[in-house]
Amino acid sequence: SLTLFGVVDLSAQHIRGDGHLTRLESGGLNGSRLGFKGQEDLGGGLAASFHLEAGLSADTGRGRPNSIGNVIETPGDFISFNRRSTVGLMGRFGEVRAGRDYTPVADNHTDFDVFGNSGVGDSSLLTQALAIGLVAGRGVRTDVRASNAVVYVLPADLGGFWGYGMVALSEKTRDDEPAGFLRGDGGHRGIRLGWEGAGLNMALAYGKSILSFQQDLSNIHFGGTYTWNDLQFFGQLSRERTTIAEVRHTNDAAALGVVWTLGVQAIKFQVVNSRIKRTGMESMRATMYSAGYDYNLSKRTALYGAVSYIRNNAAGTFDLGVPVMPGQNASGVQVGMRHAF
Amino acid sequence: SLTLFGVVDLSAQHIRGDGHLTRLESGGLNGSRLGFKGQEDLGGGLAASFHLEAGLSADTGRGRPNSIGNVIETPGDFISFNRRSTVGLMGRFGEVRAGRDYTPVADNHTDFDVFGNSGVGDSSLLTQALAIGLVAGRGVRTDVRASNAVVYVLPADLGGFWGYGMVALSEKTRDDEPAGFLRGDGGHRGIRLGWEGAGLNMALAYGKSILSFQQDLSNIHFGGTYTWNDLQFFGQLSRERTTIAEVRHTNDAAALGVVWTLGVQAIKFQVVNSRIKRTGMESMRATMYSAGYDYNLSKRTALYGAVSYIRNNAAGTFDLGVPVMPGQNASGVQVGMRHAF
Amino acid sequence: SLTLFGVVDLSAQHIRGDGHLTRLESGGLNGSRLGFKGQEDLGGGLAASFHLEAGLSADTGRGRPNSIGNVIETPGDFISFNRRSTVGLMGRFGEVRAGRDYTPVADNHTDFDVFGNSGVGDSSLLTQALAIGLVAGRGVRTDVRASNAVVYVLPADLGGFWGYGMVALSEKTRDDEPAGFLRGDGGHRGIRLGWEGAGLNMALAYGKSILSFQQDLSNIHFGGTYTWNDLQFFGQLSRERTTIAEVRHTNDAAALGVVWTLGVQAIKFQVVNSRIKRTGMESMRATMYSAGYDYNLSKRTALYGAVSYIRNNAAGTFDLGVPVMPGQNASGVQVGMRHAF
Repeated sequence: SLTLFGVVDLSAQHIRGDGHLTRLESGGLNGSRLGFKGQEDLGGGLAASFHLEAGLSADTGRGRPNSIGNVIETPGDFISFNRRSTVGLMGRFGEVRAGRDYTPVADNHTDFDVFGNSGVGDSSLLTQALAIGLVAGRGVRTDVRASNAVVYVLPADLGGFWGYGMVALSEKTRDDEPAGFLRGDGGHRGIRLGWEGAGLNMALAYGKSILSFQQDLSNIHFGGTYTWNDLQFFGQLSRERTTIAEVRHTNDAAALGVVWTLGVQAIKFQVVNSRIKRTGMESMRATMYSAGYDYNLSKRTALYGAVSYIRNNAAGTFDLGVPVMPGQNASGVQVGMRHAF
Repeated sequence: SLTLFGVVDLSAQHIRGDGHLTRLESGGLNGSRLGFKGQEDLGGGLAASFHLEAGLSADTGRGRPNSIGNVIETPGDFISFNRRSTVGLMGRFGEVRAGRDYTPVADNHTDFDVFGNSGVGDSSLLTQALAIGLVAGRGVRTDVRASNAVVYVLPADLGGFWGYGMVALSEKTRDDEPAGFLRGDGGHRGIRLGWEGAGLNMALAYGKSILSFQQDLSNIHFGGTYTWNDLQFFGQLSRERTTIAEVRHTNDAAALGVVWTLGVQAIKFQVVNSRIKRTGMESMRATMYSAGYDYNLSKRTALYGAVSYIRNNAAGTFDLGVPVMPGQNASGVQVGMRHAF
Repeated sequence: SLTLFGVVDLSAQHIRGDGHLTRLESGGLNGSRLGFKGQEDLGGGLAASFHLEAGLSADTGRGRPNSIGNVIETPGDFISFNRRSTVGLMGRFGEVRAGRDYTPVADNHTDFDVFGNSGVGDSSLLTQALAIGLVAGRGVRTDVRASNAVVYVLPADLGGFWGYGMVALSEKTRDDEPAGFLRGDGGHRGIRLGWEGAGLNMALAYGKSILSFQQDLSNIHFGGTYTWNDLQFFGQLSRERTTIAEVRHTNDAAALGVVWTLGVQAIKFQVVNSRIKRTGMESMRATMYSAGYDYNLSKRTALYGAVSYIRNNAAGTFDLGVPVMPGQNASGVQVGMRHAF
């Protein structure tokens, strides 16, 4: 089987920070993408599979950032299979696959966010603030996905338990030292373990990005959803840790949300709180309030809207895409359309 | 429905200017491309659609230039959906779509050019001389397409009248000022209105590209075709206006052409005249004479040839891909094959 | 007909040189790729065809290097149809096609290498050492493929004889001189003639890459395979010639190998010897010993492993991906999976 699939999702957004910006933005509800995937039955319970999935900036037709060796972001945004590029073998032992893939801890952030880490309500702007470079000014390239990775997925029939782990190689030799890389730089280790049943789905995940040049970054995340009639409740607890310019930073975050499904409509609310403690400096704190509304014209096509507001404390600089001065608040609104194929 | 489509079109070209060049060139008859498009019937007269189309330089397998925010051309020519990247909703109200798309005025130039703005006979080398940077040395990025655009298309049943308009956002904030961008930079507004019937198709289009850093550029274009038996007549009138280095430039152009279809063969002629008036300087003038021949092996596959000659006045520097000295003439010849799929 | 096809091939490799490197690498058995191809029957024995094939670095989801005008390698590794981008017309006269394609001499290297020029056993690391830049530090861009090429392929029914030739254009004008290009730079001429029958397939190929800025490089290669029951024997003889910094370099190489097919398994051995003679300097010599094992889970999916060892003489610096000091030996091992679709 060979499947061609994709998403084109565009929204008009108005973002306020220190200045304001009206823009057409890709991926307000789901990340725009184009992919090719397939599976081959090998007999004896074995199957081979591949998955090539390219992120798109549908507002310009360009791709999305990728990374050379998990350290440097590729310049420009041309198309590559940055979302996923894997080949795998699955059987009764589970699945082993290799290539570029999502990190386990990033999946935990996405699955337990009411907005799926997309658009103006994306909770990872707070919960992954250190990974995306809010303080350091430079993001960690393994914050969402890692290249050069090997993933092992547990088999499906474990009484509701599920999980997977990833090791992503650094691929630096001693010879890269003059270029500023040290051994281990760009490596990533991650694991995610969950349980699903009785309307509940919950999981614990941990990831460590190795960054010899700048700082290692660890991230532990617990999240869950509980479905009760038309309501689905979301909860997250997470801690990021790293050292930037010899200052220890710890980002403790929590989020609560709910999705109310009414036939083809869905109403969403979420509150996220984040506090970045810094040795010898005032903490950066923020609370983010978000609400969303989806109208599904079909399973594949939806119209949607969302609003979000971030209240920063005096030292807080959390934003929604337009930088803010310390203590300034941020807001965003989006109206868009998503079509999947 | 999901459709995979494309064109691979290559020709051998010999171009003369100040020096000469023999090259294999992509897109002598139609631009080479690879695309994915689809439509979903949503019931009640509504339909959703997407369109992702990547330009190709088939001579090297690379893509075609795109633009970051309609101001800077992307370096290198890697593949992106630079030709079109849109999602849309259509119904009895017409169609609304968003993303990267052709500007209305560029469509007018293309539809009323005998050579469809492709290959050595492309009239836009004269009629869009200011937009493509003949004088300024740097082209306007919204000369053919615009990113971050919203397009509205009139419904189909208006007694032969048709039309559409585009607004493309600038997406610059105050914060981009240090990088040399001002608000509005890269924005585009355009409209096109036409009427078709009795063998006639004609349209008026206007576009304005906002360029705070360099110069705004406006373009008004009127064109038409008239079909009489095996003959199709083409006509164009256009005016481009901009200010470069505080000198006002006005490019007035006109073109006349004919296509004679004889079964699977087509014979084409076109004459284009252009005059760029410049405050306090001598005008740049040129006349371009072009002829072409197509032999259609099938609906999808054609062999073709074309020749073109540009006569410049003493100040004219219009060229066909190899720059000329002022007053020097230019010529080009191409023989190629186009295959569509 | 329109066919979507591809390969995702990933292996874990450990390479030793001056330092060592563990990496996930794309293309240990076959180069990872994604392609689109099709053919149209035009009647009268004529057919049109197109072929667009993009190389992938499946470990990161990125593409593979391409070249602008066969002289400069494109920066970054974004996706383009770098493997092949052609349109062609075939009939009783043979086939003419144009675009970016494999050079005839590179095909000879690949077809008569036990490892198909992929992974740690790739004999071209020795036999094409000058083309890939072992001495000059900069590879020749037409070592494997050429852009701006026209290819003519002999018809199929010539009593076992087969062959094709290529001319790739330089596309430099006098005007490129300030940029460091001279006329002819980047051009390539190549031819390949073979005979197949009685279990034997053998061919002679010649290619010349024109490099006015650096050095012209010529390559003559003779290779063959002979199939006897479950065994297939491989042989190669080649000579590369170029001048680097006014020193004449001649690389004489030879290789012998065998593939033993046992049902779904294949066992491979190859020995390659190379000697680069340099006017007034000690020759660089190396012998490469390689062994491989493939287990085919299906026609499309294989698990594989290979080892390789390079013994250098005192001046030799041949390596397997991690540079070595003169006289140092290199080794590599890989275990991987290839899935074709």
